Amino acid sequence: MSNNDQFTFQRAKVEDIKDVLAMIQELADFEKMSNGPRLTEEDLIRDAGLSGEQECCEVYVLVDNATKLAIGYSICYKAYSTWQGRYFFVEDIYVRPEHRQRGAGRRIFLEVSARAVELKCPRLEFNVLEWNPARKFYESLGAVDLTAKEGWHYYRVEEQQLSKLANDLASSKS
Amino acid sequence: MSNNDQFTFQRAKVEDIKDVLAMIQELADFEKMSNGPRLTEEDLIRDAGLSGEQECCEVYVLVDNATKLAIGYSICYKAYSTWQGRYFFVEDIYVRPEHRQRGAGRRIFLEVSARAVELKCPRLEFNVLEWNPARKFYESLGAVDLTAKEGWHYYRVEEQQLSKLANDLASSKS
Repeated sequence: MSNNDQFTFQRAKVEDIKDVLAMIQELADFEKMSNGPRLTEEDLIRDAGLSGEQECCEVYVLVDNATKLAIGYSICYKAYSTWQGRYFFVEDIYVRPEHRQRGAGRRIFLEVSARAVELKCPRLEFNVLEWNPARKFYESLGAVDLTAKEGWHYYRVEEQQLSKLANDLASSKS
Repeated sequence: MSNNDQFTFQRAKVEDIKDVLAMIQELADFEKMSNGPRLTEEDLIRDAGLSGEQECCEVYVLVDNATKLAIGYSICYKAYSTWQGRYFFVEDIYVRPEHRQRGAGRRIFLEVSARAVELKCPRLEFNVLEWNPARKFYESLGAVDLTAKEGWHYYRVEEQQLSKLANDLASSKS
């Protein structure tokens, strides 16, 4: 890292998790889904591999070197494609509003790209809401909108329905 | 499992992987992306955890009990959401055309749903092409099209661009 670097991108430590959870909530508020986040501090510490268990995801913070405060974060994990094998999925990228326009978002995006290359992942993927102005920023960095280009639709089965389907299976076997 | 069950859904064994790769290619052909698949038999054996290394994904086959042949497959992995933690992502579900209309697709979908519940995953997610008639089938099983409902767009950065971004980062630090 050069000495005049204004940011440090690093793995979140236990003491960063409270800040990361606050930023997850800020991102959910921005996405107009304030009731989405349900993880506790304990959950995220465990899932980030900070309590000795195997990690489920990689949690990073972007620190402002001037203030030593976390001003952004990213959470990523290793996904899998039947065409190309392991790839890297970016669940979240976020920079606090008062720290935008300083290259912080670009820095996080480049860092997770470099991490993907380090992991020998031939793809980086993520989902963005249609109205999110960040789409233009991602496209300027070479990300391709596969929903527009190829027509991919993103589907989810929620918890209650999943239980119903699992019960349907159990009934069909009994 | 009841005795009159016409299918068996099970983890792929080493000897199934050739069949699974053939079906991955059939699915890519159907999706009009015949040049997509690049995994070798050795890759998929390793990634499925069948050669002693840690698995990257779970590979399942649906066997026709009458013929003992694999007539479909599914490949899934554990993904991660910053709202609800670990969830289950279905990369592929496929039934060979000559074996459709017998409940095989429904059986696979129920089985992966039950696996998600077993893993305490509160969500099952997957991507489907807009023109794929299977969308109606997934919706009939309670899957919600989040691209239509919430406006999610699915983005990708491909390998060459990823390397460029990683190089840009390295240059900015040197």
